[in-house]
Amino acid sequence: MAESVYKIVELVGSSPNSWEEAAKNAVETAGKSLQELRIAEVSELDMKLEDGKVAAFRARVKVSFKYLGKE
Amino acid sequence: MAESVYKIVELVGSSPNSWEEAAKNAVETAGKSLQELRIAEVSELDMKLEDGKVAAFRARVKVSFKYLGKE
Amino acid sequence: MAESVYKIVELVGSSPNSWEEAAKNAVETAGKSLQELRIAEVSELDMKLEDGKVAAFRARVKVSFKYLGKE
Amino acid sequence: MAESVYKIVELVGSSPNSWEEAAKNAVETAGKSLQELRIAEVSELDMKLEDGKVAAFRARVKVSFKYLGKE
Amino acid sequence: MAESVYKIVELVGSSPNSWEEAAKNAVETAGKSLQELRIAEVSELDMKLEDGKVAAFRARVKVSFKYLGKE
Amino acid sequence: MAESVYKIVELVGSSPNSWEEAAKNAVETAGKSLQELRIAEVSELDMKLEDGKVAAFRARVKVSFKYLGKE
Amino acid sequence: MAESVYKIVELVGSSPNSWEEAAKNAVETAGKSLQELRIAEVSELDMKLEDGKVAAFRARVKVSFKYLGKE
Amino acid sequence: MAESVYKIVELVGSSPNSWEEAAKNAVETAGKSLQELRIAEVSELDMKLEDGKVAAFRARVKVSFKYLGKE
Amino acid sequence: MAESVYKIVELVGSSPNSWEEAAKNAVETAGKSLQELRIAEVSELDMKLEDGKVAAFRARVKVSFKYLGKE
Amino acid sequence: MAESVYKIVELVGSSPNSWEEAAKNAVETAGKSLQELRIAEVSELDMKLEDGKVAAFRARVKVSFKYLGKE
Amino acid sequence: MAESVYKIVELVGSSPNSWEEAAKNAVETAGKSLQELRIAEVSELDMKLEDGKVAAFRARVKVSFKYLGKE
Amino acid sequence: MAESVYKIVELVGSSPNSWEEAAKNAVETAGKSLQELRIAEVSELDMKLEDGKVAAFRARVKVSFKYLGKE
Repeated sequence: MAESVYKIVELVGSSPNSWEEAAKNAVETAGKSLQELRIAEVSELDMKLEDGKVAAFRARVKVSFKYLGKE
Repeated sequence: MAESVYKIVELVGSSPNSWEEAAKNAVETAGKSLQELRIAEVSELDMKLEDGKVAAFRARVKVSFKYLGKE
Repeated sequence: MAESVYKIVELVGSSPNSWEEAAKNAVETAGKSLQELRIAEVSELDMKLEDGKVAAFRARVKVSFKYLGKE
Repeated sequence: MAESVYKIVELVGSSPNSWEEAAKNAVETAGKSLQELRIAEVSELDMKLEDGKVAAFRARVKVSFKYLGKE
Repeated sequence: MAESVYKIVELVGSSPNSWEEAAKNAVETAGKSLQELRIAEVSELDMKLEDGKVAAFRARVKVSFKYLGKE
Repeated sequence: MAESVYKIVELVGSSPNSWEEAAKNAVETAGKSLQELRIAEVSELDMKLEDGKVAAFRARVKVSFKYLGKE
Repeated sequence: MAESVYKIVELVGSSPNSWEEAAKNAVETAGKSLQELRIAEVSELDMKLEDGKVAAFRARVKVSFKYLGKE
Repeated sequence: MAESVYKIVELVGSSPNSWEEAAKNAVETAGKSLQELRIAEVSELDMKLEDGKVAAFRARVKVSFKYLGKE
Repeated sequence: MAESVYKIVELVGSSPNSWEEAAKNAVETAGKSLQELRIAEVSELDMKLEDGKVAAFRARVKVSFKYLGKE
Repeated sequence: MAESVYKIVELVGSSPNSWEEAAKNAVETAGKSLQELRIAEVSELDMKLEDGKVAAFRARVKVSFKYLGKE
Repeated sequence: MAESVYKIVELVGSSPNSWEEAAKNAVETAGKSLQELRIAEVSELDMKLEDGKVAAFRARVKVSFKYLGKE
Repeated sequence: MAESVYKIVELVGSSPNSWEEAAKNAVETAGKSLQELRIAEVSELDMKLEDGKVAAFRARVKVSFKYLGKE
C-alpha cells in the first residue's frame, strides 16, 4: 500500500571473491524482512587489505525495511 | 541536555497526493519518539509510476531519535 | 526481462500551481513509453519568476525508457 | 545588459501548508529587487517539527540581485 | 576531428550474474554507434531484488555518441 | 508556455583554441532547436592530450530541448 | 570473519567544549557494541546556538555494528 | 513566527588555537542579530600556513539572519 | 590579523567574450573592498543564449569581504 | 604508531576480465609499501572501449603510504 | 597494455591571461611523462587576486602517470 | 612567480588528543617543502577506535608542493 513508511538501512557485506558476492551477502542476510522490496543501491565499494594483498571485497548497500514506528 | 546522543534515521513516506503529505506520513509515524526534535531534512523526492502515470509521491526524510546505546 | 537495456532521460515539467503538477506533466507527457517503469526521481526543483513573482514551479525528473540501440 | 554583476543570496521561507508557499514567501519578500530576474533555484527542503508533528515546511531558495559594488 | 560534437547518454544494463556483464550489455547494445569512442563511465550500481534475493545486477553507464544536430 | 515539457541533453564540444569556442560549438550545432532557450550550463571541462601536449579543449554543456513525447 | 555483515549507523554527539568531546560521546555511548571496529567517520559538524552564543559543539559520526539480520 | 524569511550567510572565523575558537569568533561577531537562531553549520575547515607552519585554524560557518526584504 | 571575521559572497559576472572577462568583471566591481584578499573561487560557469546563439559567458565566483558584524 | 603521517594516492588498475581484478592489480603493484594498511577505497569505475566493445575494466582506488616528508 | 597501473596526480597551473594557458602550463610541465595519455580533467578553477584585481588565473587538472610501484 | 606549477598532495595526520594536532602533524612533517604556501584544506576527519574507545583523531589535509616536472 502506498501509505506504508519505510526505513533506509545501510549494510556492508564482504566476500573474498567479488563485490557481487559481498553485496549479495548483505542483502540476503536481511532478506526475510525485504520480501516486498525491489531495489538495493550500492553506495560504496572498498577492499580490506592484509599484508599488501586484497583480503576481502566489501560493498555498502542501501536497502529499505517496513518501518513499524519504533526505534 | 546537550550531552545526549542521537541517532539519525532516514524514513520514506508516500502519498497519492503530495510530497508534503508523504513527508508528514514519515515524520508522524515516528512522531512519538520525536517529541524533543525540531528539524526533519528532506534528502530525496521521487514518484512511483504505474502504467505511465504517477501512483504515489515519495519523500525521504532524515529525523533523529534519542540513542539509547544499543543497536 | 532482466537483460533489457534502458536509457535515462531528464525531463523538465512546469506548472503554475505546484511541483507535484510540474513533475506529473513531465512524466505523463512521456507516459506512453513508460508503461513498464516504476520510479521517476526528482533531480532539481526551481521556479520561474516574472516581475518579482513566481510564474511557474518547475521540476526536473529522471525517467528511463527501453533503449532500442540507436541514437 | 550583459555586463551587470549579480550577487546570489540564499533565502529561507516557511509556511504551515506547503513548500510551494514557503518558497513563494521567500521570493516575494525579496520581490521588489528581483524585477529583472528569471529563476530561483531550490537548494534544500526541510520541516520544522513541534511535539512530533510538522509545524512548518521550509524551502531554501537561491535568488540573485543586481550587485551595486558595496558589501 | 577535434570539432565534432558529442552527446552523452546514460544507459542501464542488467545481468543475473555480474555488474561487468550488466555494463557490457549496455555498452554493446549501443555498440554500432560507439565505434570511435574510448571510455564508458559507470555512474551507479544497484541490484534488483525479488523475494528478498538478488534477481539482477544493474549498472548505469555514460557513453557518448556523435551528435548530428537534431533531437 | 509554462506547461511545455523540456528534455535536458548533455553535449560535448571541442576546440583547439579555448573552452569558450568548445562550448559555442556544442550549443550552436544544436542551435536550431534551441531558439526559445536561455541558459546552457557547463558541467565539465577537460583537455584531449596528444604526445604530452593539449590537442583540444572540451566542454560538456547541458541544454534543453522542447520534448515532443517520444524517445 | 570476512563474511560478517555490518550496519552503518549515524550518531550525533554533543559537548559544550569541543568537537572531539562531542564525537567521543557519540562513539563511546555505542562503545560496547563496537569492540571489533576500527574507524568512525565524521560526516558533519555544527553548533547549537543560544542567545547568539555557542551552547554546544555537535559532531555526526558514522559507526558500524555487527548486523544480526533483523530490523 | 513560521512565516518570517531568513537569509543564509557564510562567515569565516579564525583562531591561532582551534577550530572551535575560530567558529565561535565567526558566530559571536554576528551574535547580536542571531538571538532567535539555533544552528550554525560548519561548511569547511582549513588552515593558514606561514613558513611551513600552521598560523591559524579557520572555520566557515553558515548562519541565518532575519531577512528584512532589502539587499 | 588572524582573528578578523570574513563573509563569503557569491557574485555572477558576465561578458560577451570569455569566462575570464566575466569573472574579472565580478571581482573588480567588488574590488575596492577586496584589497586584502587573495583568492576568488569559480563555483559555476554557464552561457546566456539568444536565438540559439551564445550571447554571454557567465562566471559565478566566491569572494570574501571583511565582516563588520551587521547584516 | 598513531603519530605517523600518511599520503593518499589514487591508482588506476585495469583488467580484461573484471573490476575486482583491475582493483587488485592496482593494489598489489603498490603492495610492498602497503604492508601496514587496511583499506583501499574505490573512487571510480569505468571501461575502455575498442570498436564498440569493452576492451578493459578499470578501477580507481585510493590507498595510503607512509609519508616520509619529502615530495 | 591494458594491465599497466597508473597514478592520478592533481596539478595546478597558472597564467596571467587565461585558464586555457594555466591548464596548458600544468599539463605541459608534466608532458614528458604523459606521452601515452589522452585526457586531463579540470577539477577546479580559481583566481589569485592582488590589490582587488585578478593577478592570475589558475586551473587544477588531473593527469595520470604510469605507476612504477614505488612511492 | 605566477607561472610555477604545483602538485596537490593529500596527507593524513593523527593525534591522540585533537584534530588540530593531527592536522598540524601532517602539515609540519611536510613543512620544509611548504615554505611558500598559504593554505591547507581539510578534506576529511575521522577517528581510529580501539576496544570501543577513540584511540586517535585523524585529519586528511590537502597541501600543495612546487612541482618539478617528474613523477
